[in-house]
Amino acid sequence: PPAWGTAAPRPPGLPLAPCRAFSNNKILVELDESSGVATMKFKSPPVNSLSLDFITELCISLEKLENNRECRGVILTSAVPNIFSSGLDITEMCGKSMEHYAEFWRAVQEMWLRLYGSNMVTVAAVNGSSPAGGCLIALSCDYRIMVQNPKFIIGLNEAQLGIVAPFWFKDTFVNTVGHRVAERSLQLGSLHSASEAHKFGLVDELVPEEKLQEKAAAVMAQWLALPDHARQLTKSMMRKAVLDRLVAHREEDIQNFVNFISKESIQKSLRMYMEMLKKKK
Amino acid sequence: PPAWGTAAPRPPGLPLAPCRAFSNNKILVELDESSGVATMKFKSPPVNSLSLDFITELCISLEKLENNRECRGVILTSAVPNIFSSGLDITEMCGKSMEHYAEFWRAVQEMWLRLYGSNMVTVAAVNGSSPAGGCLIALSCDYRIMVQNPKFIIGLNEAQLGIVAPFWFKDTFVNTVGHRVAERSLQLGSLHSASEAHKFGLVDELVPEEKLQEKAAAVMAQWLALPDHARQLTKSMMRKAVLDRLVAHREEDIQNFVNFISKESIQKSLRMYMEMLKKKK
Amino acid sequence: PPAWGTAAPRPPGLPLAPCRAFSNNKILVELDESSGVATMKFKSPPVNSLSLDFITELCISLEKLENNRECRGVILTSAVPNIFSSGLDITEMCGKSMEHYAEFWRAVQEMWLRLYGSNMVTVAAVNGSSPAGGCLIALSCDYRIMVQNPKFIIGLNEAQLGIVAPFWFKDTFVNTVGHRVAERSLQLGSLHSASEAHKFGLVDELVPEEKLQEKAAAVMAQWLALPDHARQLTKSMMRKAVLDRLVAHREEDIQNFVNFISKESIQKSLRMYMEMLKKKK
Repeated sequence: PPAWGTAAPRPPGLPLAPCRAFSNNKILVELDESSGVATMKFKSPPVNSLSLDFITELCISLEKLENNRECRGVILTSAVPNIFSSGLDITEMCGKSMEHYAEFWRAVQEMWLRLYGSNMVTVAAVNGSSPAGGCLIALSCDYRIMVQNPKFIIGLNEAQLGIVAPFWFKDTFVNTVGHRVAERSLQLGSLHSASEAHKFGLVDELVPEEKLQEKAAAVMAQWLALPDHARQLTKSMMRKAVLDRLVAHREEDIQNFVNFISKESIQKSLRMYMEMLKKKK
Repeated sequence: PPAWGTAAPRPPGLPLAPCRAFSNNKILVELDESSGVATMKFKSPPVNSLSLDFITELCISLEKLENNRECRGVILTSAVPNIFSSGLDITEMCGKSMEHYAEFWRAVQEMWLRLYGSNMVTVAAVNGSSPAGGCLIALSCDYRIMVQNPKFIIGLNEAQLGIVAPFWFKDTFVNTVGHRVAERSLQLGSLHSASEAHKFGLVDELVPEEKLQEKAAAVMAQWLALPDHARQLTKSMMRKAVLDRLVAHREEDIQNFVNFISKESIQKSLRMYMEMLKKKK
Repeated sequence: PPAWGTAAPRPPGLPLAPCRAFSNNKILVELDESSGVATMKFKSPPVNSLSLDFITELCISLEKLENNRECRGVILTSAVPNIFSSGLDITEMCGKSMEHYAEFWRAVQEMWLRLYGSNMVTVAAVNGSSPAGGCLIALSCDYRIMVQNPKFIIGLNEAQLGIVAPFWFKDTFVNTVGHRVAERSLQLGSLHSASEAHKFGLVDELVPEEKLQEKAAAVMAQWLALPDHARQLTKSMMRKAVLDRLVAHREEDIQNFVNFISKESIQKSLRMYMEMLKKKK
């Protein structure tokens, strides 16, 4: 049972340049020190797929911000038009060694643990399609704003590829949309339009593309108006059970993934799927 | 925690006549082998009450279909006008031996375990009223379509009869409509109109009676478009906790039922209730 | 797993005066013996704050009614205009001894255990604002009717004061509005207008002020139409898990509260908050 909490005053910190950017290869991070709000822009064309490199950068960026007393909130968005993130990079799961699969899966877990358990306020500004792992990133934030574009879709569509979302994807989804909606959507591997996703609470708000940044900043300001410590303890109280469940079963979950993904039947499916994607281009 | 899954290719099986019917006394089962979809029609007039015989046939029919590689989905519907199923047969719970009560309850449990845990896609085509155990059958399917007829009602109305829905009825209900709706509806023993049931998610869709069959087939086709194995693992991931709970407490639950139902006060209530039903006719 | 239940016939009891009132200092209790419905009117101006005295009276009143076979339901409402209850009395948490804090917290727990676990039908007739502990009282009832007045607000706003709602406030909230709504509302410490609260199920129904009493009586009559014993067992089945959780962690929860509230930083916050409230007047 969680304790009662109080707002820990934020130590002033050292004076810094008003806006630093620590660029890296796949994610652009900008911190506005006047507001304490960072923006993470996914810039890994063509589709911001979650490769091991991408995920590692995401984890490191989150850790840096988490440890930076100047930073209280993060907005996650995409610098690539029409796509937020296409989800886990299939090339990481195909034709590689067991060791590679294990390393990759541990990174995916790490990303979720850091994001879903972040002490910062996290806002997903979903400015493009967001299937599978992309949807998971959005689901792991505190608030989801999506651009109202009929072409943008979002959902956990793993079942469509013949695979199954892991239990902690499912737990995150159930915590957001409830058991029944999750049960149906996961079994059908549904990709929902922005409007549909909004209707059942998969996203919290829809905006025209040109208003997205402004709206994300306004939502962030609303959440940052709360004392950090009380908000953080409350967030932890809500999410701890589900986070703890992965922590308790982490190695088992990696083993499951490695065993599954290295099956010849699965490797074949994934190769066929990649062929199909190539032809699409 | 569940494993990652993949679509197990369905072995071709032996060639069979295009449409077999294995009729029995109370349920008509038709399998359309071109689509892999079976239809179970409850035909136990006047009200498709769930007698021990009915339940046994239902379990056997489900088992046969489950083991038939030609069959991937089942539509459950009624051949009796205006009633889907009136629920558990009160005559099985009145004036019988303790052994009979235990046998009956074990069969009720078995029916739910098979239906809620089925590997097949299960669609309830609810073409009539569906109180108590009838509602449970619908709740245990993957999708519920109900005929939009103002006279048709559905709900877990046990409390109105002075009895209490068992915990696994409750768990199934909560998984479908959420905790609050379930709490209120179960305490009031509410029987909801089709429209009301649709509003809070007890049924997924309403159709005019003449469209029911067509709609059920379309929904089934949508669900069957997914790879079986991925869909089955996902379904199991969603329902396992609740199924396991009954499996773990099965004998205790039977004992509870037998002790309760054999009380003289309850036997008296049930006799009075049956008298009332007889007079109604 | 809960047992099956039956309607225990209510013993007739001794003949009593048709309407007794056992007045005390802060709560007026009236029992209408013809209907078996009691009304509890909070009359502790200016804001019905939940002082140790108030809470003790509430617990004693509930216990008396619970043990009174003439009483089957309670309507909770306020005799103070524009406020249902302002929540826990801050003066009980400020500048007092550790022993006092422990005693106070045990009383708060007791109030919730009695109310959320009551065998009676409990209806909250919310005729004024109802923040924090006031909201908890409403959430702990079986049904919530709120006066549709744009000035009346309701919610668990603890985070706004730099404190955190205890886990059992959270559990009660989640059982009512679901995980996602609770997560967002608790983190933001939101106070919702009556309309907003109604929209997501924090209250069940809105009425004009002049219809409140009539509506509460009608709702009560609907719930009392059910056999008591079946209704009580069903209620217990729905709420037991959450009630048991506090019972199992009660001393730990008291210790948490005492440690937290006696921190100098918290004491300072609370003193500042009280100063602000005084200036508001």
